Amino acid sequence: MLAVEEPLEIRVEGRSIAVVMRTPGHDRELAAGFLLTEGVIKSVKDLFDITTCVAPAGAGKGNAVDVALARPGTVDLEKLTRHVFTSSSCGICSQTSIDAVLRVRKRLVDGVRIRARALLALPARLSGQQTAFHTTGGLHACALFSHDGKLLALREDVGRHNALDKLIGWALLERRTPLRGHVVLLSGRASFEMMQKSHAAGIPVVAAISAPSSLAVEFARAGGQTLAGFVRGRSMNLYAGAERIAG
Amino acid sequence: MLAVEEPLEIRVEGRSIAVVMRTPGHDRELAAGFLLTEGVIKSVKDLFDITTCVAPAGAGKGNAVDVALARPGTVDLEKLTRHVFTSSSCGICSQTSIDAVLRVRKRLVDGVRIRARALLALPARLSGQQTAFHTTGGLHACALFSHDGKLLALREDVGRHNALDKLIGWALLERRTPLRGHVVLLSGRASFEMMQKSHAAGIPVVAAISAPSSLAVEFARAGGQTLAGFVRGRSMNLYAGAERIAG
Repeated sequence: MLAVEEPLEIRVEGRSIAVVMRTPGHDRELAAGFLLTEGVIKSVKDLFDITTCVAPAGAGKGNAVDVALARPGTVDLEKLTRHVFTSSSCGICSQTSIDAVLRVRKRLVDGVRIRARALLALPARLSGQQTAFHTTGGLHACALFSHDGKLLALREDVGRHNALDKLIGWALLERRTPLRGHVVLLSGRASFEMMQKSHAAGIPVVAAISAPSSLAVEFARAGGQTLAGFVRGRSMNLYAGAERIAG
Repeated sequence: MLAVEEPLEIRVEGRSIAVVMRTPGHDRELAAGFLLTEGVIKSVKDLFDITTCVAPAGAGKGNAVDVALARPGTVDLEKLTRHVFTSSSCGICSQTSIDAVLRVRKRLVDGVRIRARALLALPARLSGQQTAFHTTGGLHACALFSHDGKLLALREDVGRHNALDKLIGWALLERRTPLRGHVVLLSGRASFEMMQKSHAAGIPVVAAISAPSSLAVEFARAGGQTLAGFVRGRSMNLYAGAERIAG
């Protein structure tokens, strides 16, 4: 059994802005989540419609999604294309564009507290639900939990960014964003981009089963997020925002 | 101990074409490998010079690399920027751009044969050399072997694509590409993009410790590559090009 990987073209107002390699399914959520976490839209109100293209006869599933915006005139699509895929050309040694990549737009303020025991119990609950992973061994998973450990949604994908975008897109379309008081659990590592996407969705607590990177920790501290890594068995490492973890 | 993650801006002729999140070190190799595996250059002869920017005072290491080409006039930088980051806008249901993503430029013809026992012995040799992984738990690794199992080079990075680009960039700058008769071992999964990059470097045999995706298998079959997955202990799965594995 193989984990399915196919390209999906994400379009905004008919214009191609990204091709991501993803596991088919939840494509509308993926597109919605991608636009939120890349800063193209701010809330569900910015969406007008999401259309999944129908594939040509015999070509299997459609591999394109077109997003219509509520106020298309307010987004500079030319600039957007550049923003998503590249950085602005810049000054000495890339400081300008790199700063732009790293900039935390605002510090999350969220008084939620999670019991350490509740956090440690999450990986077992994720593992119990990862059906596709168990048959293919080839998928990343992300799960969203309430502050008291209730599993709200889980998404799996060959790409870790896609799994998170699908999860956040689900929350967006369910009108649950920003995700104050929530916890996201990552089946793998916590990189900078995973923190940035979580931050864009307003998620205060990120827990990862594997290691975080240096920049993930730096970003979590600057952005007011809690970051736990190596959440396994009876222990975890807290890298940022330890004040939200009780007990 | 945290795996270091920092952005690197890759420039060609002074023009920014990508910002990748990578572990600092081997940046010239990363840039060279990226340009080869993305199809911007074909061989080391297309390179004139690779310059690592010096960071502004107090800002740590430089996070930009500028590549000067031997014949800059032959590359359309405007088109390149679009090629690397996005796909051409296209026809019905993205078939054109998706086909462009998937197109295998040519089928690798390479009569090398590897003994199954030699292939099964590689993961232990990779693991023995993954020093940064053992201290941080947060890195992907790729290693290049000769057909008889000799370890030639190993690169680790927070990003799996970067680890492979660094490895291939090393081979390119050592004037060893195309890598006929070689084996690359991936510490994690084999996705489409990992196969495509290996193919661009002419590597006939790709072995992964974890699962391949459906598209990785499809690409390997179309491109004439051997793909082994779940190479662990005394067993492995062969998904494509089994005729190169002996015994």
